[in-house]
Amino acid sequence: MEKQKVSPEQVLENMLKKDKFTQWLGLKIDEHGIGFCKLHFTVTDDMMNGFDIIHGGVLFSASDSALAFACNSHGILSVALDANISFVRPVKSGELLRVEAKEIHLGNKISVYDIRTTNEKNELVCLFKGTAYRTSKEVV
Amino acid sequence: MEKQKVSPEQVLENMLKKDKFTQWLGLKIDEHGIGFCKLHFTVTDDMMNGFDIIHGGVLFSASDSALAFACNSHGILSVALDANISFVRPVKSGELLRVEAKEIHLGNKISVYDIRTTNEKNELVCLFKGTAYRTSKEVV
Amino acid sequence: MEKQKVSPEQVLENMLKKDKFTQWLGLKIDEHGIGFCKLHFTVTDDMMNGFDIIHGGVLFSASDSALAFACNSHGILSVALDANISFVRPVKSGELLRVEAKEIHLGNKISVYDIRTTNEKNELVCLFKGTAYRTSKEVV
Amino acid sequence: MEKQKVSPEQVLENMLKKDKFTQWLGLKIDEHGIGFCKLHFTVTDDMMNGFDIIHGGVLFSASDSALAFACNSHGILSVALDANISFVRPVKSGELLRVEAKEIHLGNKISVYDIRTTNEKNELVCLFKGTAYRTSKEVV
Repeated sequence: MEKQKVSPEQVLENMLKKDKFTQWLGLKIDEHGIGFCKLHFTVTDDMMNGFDIIHGGVLFSASDSALAFACNSHGILSVALDANISFVRPVKSGELLRVEAKEIHLGNKISVYDIRTTNEKNELVCLFKGTAYRTSKEVV
Repeated sequence: MEKQKVSPEQVLENMLKKDKFTQWLGLKIDEHGIGFCKLHFTVTDDMMNGFDIIHGGVLFSASDSALAFACNSHGILSVALDANISFVRPVKSGELLRVEAKEIHLGNKISVYDIRTTNEKNELVCLFKGTAYRTSKEVV
Repeated sequence: MEKQKVSPEQVLENMLKKDKFTQWLGLKIDEHGIGFCKLHFTVTDDMMNGFDIIHGGVLFSASDSALAFACNSHGILSVALDANISFVRPVKSGELLRVEAKEIHLGNKISVYDIRTTNEKNELVCLFKGTAYRTSKEVV
Repeated sequence: MEKQKVSPEQVLENMLKKDKFTQWLGLKIDEHGIGFCKLHFTVTDDMMNGFDIIHGGVLFSASDSALAFACNSHGILSVALDANISFVRPVKSGELLRVEAKEIHLGNKISVYDIRTTNEKNELVCLFKGTAYRTSKEVV
């Protein structure tokens, strides 16, 4: 593939500036580069569901943000098409969670990501697999 | 199955009271009963991603709440195990979205839901399929 | 969209002629048209897994064939990208299963299908959701 | 967890003896143990779809078998509940495929597996994530 016009750093900076929901979630980027992203966040009371554990949507959202940062790192505007998540462990308010997105496949139009969220004991909290569609536009 | 001790209305009321993230999303329940739930919400600026469209996590979250309200309606504490979502149409801030969860299967330990989100033109925005695990506890 | 050059009937005929695995499964088409497909088959001893029930792969395969016939009905060469299946009921050798694929979304590049398999008592056996990518080629 | 009564080897032997569909697929086990399974097979003409490439159901089936052998290795009768697959590369007749199933989570009632299929060039062909339900019965 050709040399990309926008660096992963610029893509991330532009995305983060506008991404209000990622800001609300309090996601902090630890590492980011071509095809990957590591981030962490602290679970707050506002993220609880009706049973005093983290809402599944919050776990999905943090993984989905990591996917977006990883798949757009190539400088090609990419959007999630399909995603699935397996929830394996409950999380309480106050816990710190780490999310790591890895690119498993990069095709012409499609890329696939494996995204894992772990708690402070390094136990798996949820496993996310996502497929992104690479449009014909560049990320500005 | 035996007569349930807690009515769907009581379950919903108890869940909504505590569910801070559903409150943040601004979800309004339109219909709720044994095995189903209809709700709506208005998309706000805080729900945007880095490309000025709704964050996929918000769409997932609204569907996941509808799933939680539908699957717990039987009075048996139930948690989502696996969920997958297909995103088919972008959504802008200010749009009103409707979410409808239907129970497709109710087994002894497992139940399955089909959840569809539509916009004001009644166009499909995303399609969600979720599997819940029915614990041996009752919802209080 | 423009008028399609190849009719759904021709597409199906061409696909069935070559599709050796569909032939092995013994799938019989009951209805087929733009964006849908209904078929049935009888479960044989050769489809059993190690526990004397139908192998999950056979259930997936029948749904995947129904998806292929439905998504290619538009005359545009389409391939499954992502698929997920929820297994809800075991099936024994000798049972007759019906599979119905419905198009839930038809976009420019992507289409989404809901596919349900039922037994002779009209009970759900599995629920399949699949996403197809529409290439720029026509089905010949 | 308690010491298991049946060894992984015995479980596999018993499953393989009966699993007619795995036999039809020609799956050969390369490695098997607690929570994992590696196998390979050669793609035949009978596995083709209507476009002269491997039927997606065959790829799913080989992964699903690997999942079954991995999740039952603990000696507890386990069944797949939910599975999803991302297809990333076409496969022709005659190719040799390798399938590797790894246990990502082992809970009391639920276990989760990551299963990858690669071709002879070690390129990813499909990525499968599956969730199994652990019954209260032992594998005999």
